[in-house]
Amino acid sequence: MHNYSSTRTIRAGILGHSGYSGAELASLLGRHPAAVPVLLDHRQPESAAPEARPVADGGATPEQTERFPWSKTVVGDQKLDVVFTATPPEISLEIVPEILAQGARAIDLSGAFRLSAEQYARWYGAEHSRPDLLPQAVYGLPELYRERIQRACLVTNPGCYPTAAILALWPVLQEDWVDRAAGIVCDAKSGVTGAGKAPSLKTHFVQVTENFSAYAILKHRHVPEVLNSLGLQEDEFDFAAHLLPIQRGILATHYLRLRRKAALEAVFDLYRSAYRDAPFIRLYPGGGSPQVSAVQRTNFCDIHCTLGGDGRRLVVVSCIDNLVKGAAGQAIQNMNLMLGLDETAGLI
Amino acid sequence: MHNYSSTRTIRAGILGHSGYSGAELASLLGRHPAAVPVLLDHRQPESAAPEARPVADGGATPEQTERFPWSKTVVGDQKLDVVFTATPPEISLEIVPEILAQGARAIDLSGAFRLSAEQYARWYGAEHSRPDLLPQAVYGLPELYRERIQRACLVTNPGCYPTAAILALWPVLQEDWVDRAAGIVCDAKSGVTGAGKAPSLKTHFVQVTENFSAYAILKHRHVPEVLNSLGLQEDEFDFAAHLLPIQRGILATHYLRLRRKAALEAVFDLYRSAYRDAPFIRLYPGGGSPQVSAVQRTNFCDIHCTLGGDGRRLVVVSCIDNLVKGAAGQAIQNMNLMLGLDETAGLI
Amino acid sequence: MHNYSSTRTIRAGILGHSGYSGAELASLLGRHPAAVPVLLDHRQPESAAPEARPVADGGATPEQTERFPWSKTVVGDQKLDVVFTATPPEISLEIVPEILAQGARAIDLSGAFRLSAEQYARWYGAEHSRPDLLPQAVYGLPELYRERIQRACLVTNPGCYPTAAILALWPVLQEDWVDRAAGIVCDAKSGVTGAGKAPSLKTHFVQVTENFSAYAILKHRHVPEVLNSLGLQEDEFDFAAHLLPIQRGILATHYLRLRRKAALEAVFDLYRSAYRDAPFIRLYPGGGSPQVSAVQRTNFCDIHCTLGGDGRRLVVVSCIDNLVKGAAGQAIQNMNLMLGLDETAGLI
Amino acid sequence: MHNYSSTRTIRAGILGHSGYSGAELASLLGRHPAAVPVLLDHRQPESAAPEARPVADGGATPEQTERFPWSKTVVGDQKLDVVFTATPPEISLEIVPEILAQGARAIDLSGAFRLSAEQYARWYGAEHSRPDLLPQAVYGLPELYRERIQRACLVTNPGCYPTAAILALWPVLQEDWVDRAAGIVCDAKSGVTGAGKAPSLKTHFVQVTENFSAYAILKHRHVPEVLNSLGLQEDEFDFAAHLLPIQRGILATHYLRLRRKAALEAVFDLYRSAYRDAPFIRLYPGGGSPQVSAVQRTNFCDIHCTLGGDGRRLVVVSCIDNLVKGAAGQAIQNMNLMLGLDETAGLI
Repeated sequence: MHNYSSTRTIRAGILGHSGYSGAELASLLGRHPAAVPVLLDHRQPESAAPEARPVADGGATPEQTERFPWSKTVVGDQKLDVVFTATPPEISLEIVPEILAQGARAIDLSGAFRLSAEQYARWYGAEHSRPDLLPQAVYGLPELYRERIQRACLVTNPGCYPTAAILALWPVLQEDWVDRAAGIVCDAKSGVTGAGKAPSLKTHFVQVTENFSAYAILKHRHVPEVLNSLGLQEDEFDFAAHLLPIQRGILATHYLRLRRKAALEAVFDLYRSAYRDAPFIRLYPGGGSPQVSAVQRTNFCDIHCTLGGDGRRLVVVSCIDNLVKGAAGQAIQNMNLMLGLDETAGLI
Repeated sequence: MHNYSSTRTIRAGILGHSGYSGAELASLLGRHPAAVPVLLDHRQPESAAPEARPVADGGATPEQTERFPWSKTVVGDQKLDVVFTATPPEISLEIVPEILAQGARAIDLSGAFRLSAEQYARWYGAEHSRPDLLPQAVYGLPELYRERIQRACLVTNPGCYPTAAILALWPVLQEDWVDRAAGIVCDAKSGVTGAGKAPSLKTHFVQVTENFSAYAILKHRHVPEVLNSLGLQEDEFDFAAHLLPIQRGILATHYLRLRRKAALEAVFDLYRSAYRDAPFIRLYPGGGSPQVSAVQRTNFCDIHCTLGGDGRRLVVVSCIDNLVKGAAGQAIQNMNLMLGLDETAGLI
Repeated sequence: MHNYSSTRTIRAGILGHSGYSGAELASLLGRHPAAVPVLLDHRQPESAAPEARPVADGGATPEQTERFPWSKTVVGDQKLDVVFTATPPEISLEIVPEILAQGARAIDLSGAFRLSAEQYARWYGAEHSRPDLLPQAVYGLPELYRERIQRACLVTNPGCYPTAAILALWPVLQEDWVDRAAGIVCDAKSGVTGAGKAPSLKTHFVQVTENFSAYAILKHRHVPEVLNSLGLQEDEFDFAAHLLPIQRGILATHYLRLRRKAALEAVFDLYRSAYRDAPFIRLYPGGGSPQVSAVQRTNFCDIHCTLGGDGRRLVVVSCIDNLVKGAAGQAIQNMNLMLGLDETAGLI
Repeated sequence: MHNYSSTRTIRAGILGHSGYSGAELASLLGRHPAAVPVLLDHRQPESAAPEARPVADGGATPEQTERFPWSKTVVGDQKLDVVFTATPPEISLEIVPEILAQGARAIDLSGAFRLSAEQYARWYGAEHSRPDLLPQAVYGLPELYRERIQRACLVTNPGCYPTAAILALWPVLQEDWVDRAAGIVCDAKSGVTGAGKAPSLKTHFVQVTENFSAYAILKHRHVPEVLNSLGLQEDEFDFAAHLLPIQRGILATHYLRLRRKAALEAVFDLYRSAYRDAPFIRLYPGGGSPQVSAVQRTNFCDIHCTLGGDGRRLVVVSCIDNLVKGAAGQAIQNMNLMLGLDETAGLI
């Protein structure tokens, strides 16, 4: 393990830093104690040369931005240790193999490497061009897969909704407390940064403010990630997404039935045990007042449990910031693990 | 049946017109073709005399506001035909009997007459002072109880959340298509007018904007209304309320399992049949894009159905304006029915 | 004068009804006692035929929408009495002459006919193609030009900012009370509908919410309209526009110095006299609490005056709804005057 | 000068940390490289003992919170180096003398020590109880008074509006470029945190959202601070405040006339020279796009200049975060100067 802690010697490339997740990465890495962000650009310049343009925005100082040989992880004379790809899946599929070939670690924030090739074809509407890489892609949810992430060269960062859903449901499911036949509901609500930066009628201020809408009911492409991690069948998990008139934050409300009556304290013990080593999980047994403002601009996932009077109806509310724990913060948490740093470095 | 239609001869009193629902009533009645609003005040003046102060705001013109003999339905020399009480339940319990005693019809927007005396004691934390009136109080949801409302002297206007939930679920439940043992979920989100006008930290702009929160999980006092109308047991219905950073509107997402596989078209036929005479129900089979902006400042309830690939998982989204179909508009719809007017008068 | 009042016999065409102003026109006309909206479309269909597509949205019922022979004011067998063009100026310049040629009145909501040909070339960056029509185009601000509007065939509806500015300043300027050499400031703030419906980074929800910005400082294209109406020189009037994170509403704060000391009551008398016949002006002497919520969804212009202790510094705040008094409502007010209807028909 | 830089040895007390400014102070000091926040409470506990309750919220960790002997600057066995009073002026007037008597430096965020005794009586409606302290109170605007702040024991932190106004106007005024007789306009707009945390109808979400209002026109109590710093007479400065539907941020638009024609570059040189040593001033000559999102959660003051075509009409827009440069951040900047630290410590 390298000793990165005393100086900022890790060079972390960011592709796609003009989007919301990439800009958040640049901003968070700008304050990281051991890493410096290097802004890269995946767009081919107008000249014929297959070379990326250097970019100087996104929170990094100009001196942290350098010319990037197209799909190479060497900038100037120095190697990049890790490259974050906050790019559309089809771009990630092109670039990630090059990053790995150059010997750098890759953390991809798109959906390119999260699903099986079959699932990808169904949900992303295109053949997967690099199924050979899927076996080595580790799903980057540290609370479930910490050790595998530590050894990974390619981490596929989870979607924002799946992060909220899996963290809320995993403890009770892994202990087999849930009556799956009754179905598990995830009613998820997200701020508008989750819809991306491209202007559209859907994200026009006049359309969004003073409004609230549901979308992708029973057909969101984030669902298979959840099923994969939780070992659920499609008809056991009902998911609907909703658009909140706020910038950032996800609150997801989960409804399920336990197989046997339980006391709230026992449910809480189960969550406490499952997340005893997880620095970014905060548990609130007994309801409380779940709200996204408590997690905005943090990497925390807050989890609130409420048990019905019959001891079997369980409601679990999870809150995250979709740009932090749902994207950039989780990506840095993964980087920290991959490079042997403290899991919380730059995130608290 | 009186012929009210040609001139505005109906005199409709409003108690509690300084709150959001009461002000909405005054505003809507100000444009009603057959009724004029008469603003009343239930607060006893500081003088000893039990007499209410005249009020001149809330949308009615000054000449529509008159001196109101305390708990009497005669204003000036003219009788009131109907009085809306948009007051706290404990005030409604005092005033409604007086309204009825004076021979006027009463439409109460509080929770005072919605539940059995036992339920009231449990959910409102006080003994019900007039259980003798409960048998004559008709639950004012015209889509289910139109004929009873037409004959009623006392209508208890439904809560905003129950209006959204009952209208979404009633068609499939009355035809016994639902697997109740699997549980029915209602995940409901409301704008801030639903929380009332009294200033508090909870409704402070800085607390609400850019935020979203869950509350009253599995313990909202509106739940028993829903159970009563739908014939459900408490452990068959999971309800959580959420606060949206918008002024007005409710969107409720319902998740349930059908007892047998169905086609979406069959589900839609069932809703179409159930609401064939309901002028304020708009049906959207096949998902669509449910959003509160489509119903804001209207008395419509929009209902969207989505069926899972297995033909058994059904998601029903209903949208209303909590101040209109969820309060003042529905109250006027009830008034129209009670007085033999067209059900839509003043509402379209 | 035709007697339009008993039945809705006026046929009012709307071109550009998919934009915010046009949709507001369709919605307001839908409730007009004497007119019915006829939705037209100026976009040439894909077929070669120069014919517009009928459209069925925007608030008009389908039966109010008819097939529109391209740039003809006859729909079906019936003539249109008036056509509103809520179109970009270059489109208005093409269509308005055709409307007039067909014998219908035209009310243009764009900037096509508001300025002299010289001013147009400077501020709109293009030669004016129909300077011959400018002499007959009447500036549609009824509070200043009521009689000319009543006789007009072509009314050019004022911009939203100019409506707020001119109405705030005209009374003190026409009486020559103002020290023009000291300069007159108009600091104007508008909701996002003023920026139009086309999606852009500037109107993306994430950009607008929790933000506030200034733009077009000392160079807004609405300035010459104000100078023309008020008889001011360019260096006597300082204007800056600002974008509010709200849907609709303009609040403009005006600062000026009086030539001689005055009492607030005298200032108020001057405004009261100037607007004694203006049904949509509401005056608030002595400051009060100017706010856009008081005028939203109305055709009112609220005007608040505050005088400094020295009796010479005057601050005038005006508030309008940019889509109503600033666009569609004012256009209907103009239509009412042009067709001999009550000025307030359909607007109160 | 002490060497505070290597370890966090400065103990900085915060009174009034439950308000917005105090909570921001606690949050910012929690990340300060040289200081630790100590949360104090000025409210006398219910027991008779004149002792404050320890508090554990507001961003400081519990171990940073200690028992505070009422109006003493010793906590536990350790002295406090500095105490921030984010309290109402009448509380500051009681406590600040005690802080100074105990040998700690005081930074007061209220209006208690900003004005002369005469001004205080007029604008705060009460006799000033400690006029003896006013001569030693230094106005804490580092860009104007850096050296005096470095030597001060009592700093009176400027109001949020005055910070924006003085920084925008000082360079042109101190060089006597301004035609004062024509008047200087400051049209200021602030987010809702500026109105304080106490719930009221004025700050209710439903009142504020989708709204915008003007208040305190020509009579805001922040005006005399501006006049004092800029050497202006009351009738030379027109100020109006406005409430924005956002949480935080001030944008102030200033209009003035220069005594002689100037080029924009010359104006810019003047600002650049005036602020050459000011690390938190960012200059944008030539307009640009002033917006509060550029300064939110930072201690920067952005200044944009636009010059009219005549070379005499100047518009200066300044943007700050009212809770940072307008309150807590500026207070820490003052602390840094008073204690010989780097001016930017903990603020960049």
